[in-house]
Amino acid sequence: APIFDKEMYQDNSVAGVATGLAWTQSGGEILFIESSLSKGRGTFTLSGQLGEVMRESAMAALSYLKAHAEELGIDYRIFSHYDLHIHVPAGAVPKDGPSAGITMFTSLASVYTQQKIKEKLAMTGEITLRGKVLPVGGIKEKVLAARRAGIEEIILSVKNKKDIDEIEKEYIKDLKFHFVETIQEVLDLALTKEKVKKPLIFKIEENNPSTSQN
Amino acid sequence: APIFDKEMYQDNSVAGVATGLAWTQSGGEILFIESSLSKGRGTFTLSGQLGEVMRESAMAALSYLKAHAEELGIDYRIFSHYDLHIHVPAGAVPKDGPSAGITMFTSLASVYTQQKIKEKLAMTGEITLRGKVLPVGGIKEKVLAARRAGIEEIILSVKNKKDIDEIEKEYIKDLKFHFVETIQEVLDLALTKEKVKKPLIFKIEENNPSTSQN
Amino acid sequence: APIFDKEMYQDNSVAGVATGLAWTQSGGEILFIESSLSKGRGTFTLSGQLGEVMRESAMAALSYLKAHAEELGIDYRIFSHYDLHIHVPAGAVPKDGPSAGITMFTSLASVYTQQKIKEKLAMTGEITLRGKVLPVGGIKEKVLAARRAGIEEIILSVKNKKDIDEIEKEYIKDLKFHFVETIQEVLDLALTKEKVKKPLIFKIEENNPSTSQN
Amino acid sequence: APIFDKEMYQDNSVAGVATGLAWTQSGGEILFIESSLSKGRGTFTLSGQLGEVMRESAMAALSYLKAHAEELGIDYRIFSHYDLHIHVPAGAVPKDGPSAGITMFTSLASVYTQQKIKEKLAMTGEITLRGKVLPVGGIKEKVLAARRAGIEEIILSVKNKKDIDEIEKEYIKDLKFHFVETIQEVLDLALTKEKVKKPLIFKIEENNPSTSQN
Amino acid sequence: APIFDKEMYQDNSVAGVATGLAWTQSGGEILFIESSLSKGRGTFTLSGQLGEVMRESAMAALSYLKAHAEELGIDYRIFSHYDLHIHVPAGAVPKDGPSAGITMFTSLASVYTQQKIKEKLAMTGEITLRGKVLPVGGIKEKVLAARRAGIEEIILSVKNKKDIDEIEKEYIKDLKFHFVETIQEVLDLALTKEKVKKPLIFKIEENNPSTSQN
Amino acid sequence: APIFDKEMYQDNSVAGVATGLAWTQSGGEILFIESSLSKGRGTFTLSGQLGEVMRESAMAALSYLKAHAEELGIDYRIFSHYDLHIHVPAGAVPKDGPSAGITMFTSLASVYTQQKIKEKLAMTGEITLRGKVLPVGGIKEKVLAARRAGIEEIILSVKNKKDIDEIEKEYIKDLKFHFVETIQEVLDLALTKEKVKKPLIFKIEENNPSTSQN
Ligand SMILES: [Ca+2]
Ligand SMILES: [Ca+2]
Ligand SMILES: [Ca+2]
Ligand SMILES: [Ca+2]
Ligand SMILES: [Ca+2]
Ligand SMILES: [Ca+2]
Ligand SMILES: [Ca+2]
Ligand SMILES: [Ca+2]
Ligand SMILES: [Ca+2]
Ligand SMILES: [Ca+2]
Ligand SMILES: [Ca+2]
Ligand SMILES: [Ca+2]
Repeated sequence: APIFDKEMYQDNSVAGVATGLAWTQSGGEILFIESSLSKGRGTFTLSGQLGEVMRESAMAALSYLKAHAEELGIDYRIFSHYDLHIHVPAGAVPKDGPSAGITMFTSLASVYTQQKIKEKLAMTGEITLRGKVLPVGGIKEKVLAARRAGIEEIILSVKNKKDIDEIEKEYIKDLKFHFVETIQEVLDLALTKEKVKKPLIFKIEENNPSTSQN
Repeated sequence: APIFDKEMYQDNSVAGVATGLAWTQSGGEILFIESSLSKGRGTFTLSGQLGEVMRESAMAALSYLKAHAEELGIDYRIFSHYDLHIHVPAGAVPKDGPSAGITMFTSLASVYTQQKIKEKLAMTGEITLRGKVLPVGGIKEKVLAARRAGIEEIILSVKNKKDIDEIEKEYIKDLKFHFVETIQEVLDLALTKEKVKKPLIFKIEENNPSTSQN
Repeated sequence: APIFDKEMYQDNSVAGVATGLAWTQSGGEILFIESSLSKGRGTFTLSGQLGEVMRESAMAALSYLKAHAEELGIDYRIFSHYDLHIHVPAGAVPKDGPSAGITMFTSLASVYTQQKIKEKLAMTGEITLRGKVLPVGGIKEKVLAARRAGIEEIILSVKNKKDIDEIEKEYIKDLKFHFVETIQEVLDLALTKEKVKKPLIFKIEENNPSTSQN
Repeated sequence: APIFDKEMYQDNSVAGVATGLAWTQSGGEILFIESSLSKGRGTFTLSGQLGEVMRESAMAALSYLKAHAEELGIDYRIFSHYDLHIHVPAGAVPKDGPSAGITMFTSLASVYTQQKIKEKLAMTGEITLRGKVLPVGGIKEKVLAARRAGIEEIILSVKNKKDIDEIEKEYIKDLKFHFVETIQEVLDLALTKEKVKKPLIFKIEENNPSTSQN
Repeated sequence: APIFDKEMYQDNSVAGVATGLAWTQSGGEILFIESSLSKGRGTFTLSGQLGEVMRESAMAALSYLKAHAEELGIDYRIFSHYDLHIHVPAGAVPKDGPSAGITMFTSLASVYTQQKIKEKLAMTGEITLRGKVLPVGGIKEKVLAARRAGIEEIILSVKNKKDIDEIEKEYIKDLKFHFVETIQEVLDLALTKEKVKKPLIFKIEENNPSTSQN
Repeated sequence: APIFDKEMYQDNSVAGVATGLAWTQSGGEILFIESSLSKGRGTFTLSGQLGEVMRESAMAALSYLKAHAEELGIDYRIFSHYDLHIHVPAGAVPKDGPSAGITMFTSLASVYTQQKIKEKLAMTGEITLRGKVLPVGGIKEKVLAARRAGIEEIILSVKNKKDIDEIEKEYIKDLKFHFVETIQEVLDLALTKEKVKKPLIFKIEENNPSTSQN
């Protein structure tokens, strides 16, 4: 039996939800990276039975975002005035590997800017701190799963182009592929300029009790 | 022998006590999620021999609540001026899994608003950070246990409707089911507008020694 | 050989010492829960080779006490201006289980109010955050041990009444049993209004170096 | 071969060095508990390959001392302005058990008061938070080792008197035994009123950078 | 199959990316040490499945840099006002050993000065706190891998010169070797005086909320 | 093969580098204890694959130094305004045992005073908090290794004199031995009054952002 409950692409109405692709023993699956912010003092929580490599991916995605906050128009004070939680459902399924890296980055970019992610878009690729997108495995299974789930566009590393070329054309004729080298390209493709419906209005209260008490 | 001492539904007079459903080797059981607040500086304690997945569920429930505190009318300063403890009796019985997620959320919503939870209501379902309610297992056993314990209404994920449809009607004719997709629906069903008898009056003392000393 | 050195009930002259009942391979024993406070900044130390379940019991007992401090007449600032240590002798004997829960609560109530615990009283029962007293095992052995140690009254969960009813009357004719449902009842039975001989005088120095340095 | 290098009693010129008795596979040994203070902010370090029970003994000894600081004439601010280190040589020999408890307490009482410990005195006994001295094992071997090492007086729990009575008189005729019930008795016997030669002069600088920076 | 994806030297346009040499079961490889800074309060994160020895190398590299910050023209306040992340792709490949020490140091020197690292340069060698460069293993395999990846210059410990002398000349005729004894020599060879294209402008805001809130 | 790369004594130009003696399966070796300070807030880092006993030795050495800072002329504020790192190369070789204790103390004394350590001097011995130097094992192998490495003087515990007496005179005729009882004697022998070439000038900036931000 599939370990992920077969998921369909849903919508892009909530900030911080990006669609990734996972490779499991029973084939490919889509998965959602969910990022959420709440007033606090900059703590960072990860959940969803994530293995060590996937946790390190999340840390790399966050460091890259923080190091490039200014370019993204993110007030850096948000990082120390809001708590961040990244969760990957389903919560009982162990997950690991570096391939969610760029999905995690996209999720973070969306939640910190409150901008929508492009609709019906999925992605898979490793992130590095210098902004490269590295190739990952299981491409064929991931792509077929994306199609079944209603995905229309997929972002991959240029080094994964050869894996797409090996898939029979008729299976993927209705999918659009984007082969990228850098995180900046991922961002340009995935993050729209449109805010989500009920965007979080960030409040940086300099002298409130929440921030002065620690 | 059953590992949970057979419990009956009790009452909704104490804030922060929500009724969940567990699935054990010896069948279904009801269980209570107990949340408690005391003046402090925002620490979070979990107890009751909870496994890693159940702990992550509690963290997701809390993050969702914090991210939506304003909509719930919760003064966000409570999170940093009160300590939170979530306990699940019986304290010696190991428990795990994601199915208590929405019960934990309901317990938290009640303790932070000091509003009563609807009487004779139980629930089971996984929570996600984007506010979806995911299906869980063991539905038949859980439902029968709820009935034995005096429960009259049950909240489930819409994706668990098929599990209810497979149960013989006569066993569940006196139960009312609510099939939901989102946490917001859980909240609308489970949290009454009525305060508990002796509600905790939150005090946010801006310059008291307890908060300024750290 | 008994793993606990056979202890006799001593006296109630020191605040924070409550008498519990343990169930070991070699039969029942009384045990002492010792709570101690010293000026500090609210740290919490547990010792006596306590297992995970017993540690969680202590945490639940403390959370319940903190959440009900006002009703007990405890200035909540004591929690952040004094360090708490709970120790259970003998220090080399591993101990576990939830049954010391209400004993731990009673020990804490005594040390934070500096009121005497009723003489020649022992108790055994699990504590929950909502204030229920749950039943525990090994009742017969525990009760016989209490009698040998000079105990005259015992507090138990109402759900343990059936275990007492099964003991031959002649063994327990000189013991008085209190069957309770809530922690409040334990408190009414166990904590006297009388202060201990040399009560600790709590000092909350708002701007002293000890509290301002962190 | 003995695992402790055969030690002789040395002298009482340094504050915080108390003589305990250990029981090893190759017989009894004396051991030194060394406590040291240095300006800091109240950290607590333990070393000497101490097992969990022995570490908990040290914590109990420290808590008892702190809770009774006023009676000992110790300015409680020292606890937060000086760092404490307890070390037990030889550093590579694993040590465990509760029997060093009263020796640790005596070492702490000496280092925080800078008073000398009585000469040629050793002790062995478990400490409890309520101030009782509990009996320990290996008495015969420990006593013989003490004699070989030049010890003239030994403090024991009254409950260990029966172990002394079983030793042939001629082996112990030149030793003086003190059987105690409480820590207070240990203190009265072991801590002299005389300061050590170069006593540490405690400085509590209220607004210095060392204490205000954290 | 090679566990590292065969990498080619890329360019020196990003600060904090230095090229090291790894020795794997399938031969030598180049690897990138990526260091990144973002506004924060001086936290230090390591990722890339690094073993304990490699983590200690990173700590030694950072300590050496901090101890010599003034000589490098680094404002020491940057260390407490910016968070540091060192990542080594590929993120799923376990890596260990001390040989990346001088590469880590070079990466750090570049990111804290925002100066370019010399082009087409790789290095391998252990770092020590006193500034020595110690020899490492796998030199032949590492050197051949460097050549395949487009590297033109290599820094090694003088004690590794004998390993180079054993390689056939024709394999390495187009490579330039630098044999060094100290970290200072590494720095003189590897760090150019030229700033990277879009250098990070360090901002030390003395009283901003980010730094005053902790 | 020797697990330590055969090292020769180098020089005493860098503060905080002391020469110890190790005993390995392949014989004796010299090893360097490297201590380094950088502006910070008093953190303490240990590296070099040190086992638990060796880490505890380092902690004891540091505590002794701090407790006797005034006698050494060390401004105690340095401890909270500078970060300390102790590293023992080679970084991949596991090391353990108490015998580096006095070498660690000497290294610390040098780095905190910026005074030179006497040339061509090595030492081996356990440190205790009360200032005793305890004997250690492997003396013959250590001494022969010291001689091969160019060492001319060696400090040992008086209790190790018997081990030297057992070595044939001709092997050690050009070595000078110092047998000591206390750390103070080690200090008098090992630490010169001369500052190192480029001494670190300690700066205690009372209100700078580095120290006020925590
Ligand atoms: Ca896990
Ligand atoms: Ca993915
Ligand atoms: Ca457990
Ligand atoms: Ca549930
Ligand atoms: Ca244990
Ligand atoms: Ca009990
Ligand atoms: Ca150990
Ligand atoms: Ca002892
Ligand atoms: Ca690992
Ligand atoms: Ca390298
Ligand atoms: Ca290790
Ligand atoms: Ca040594």
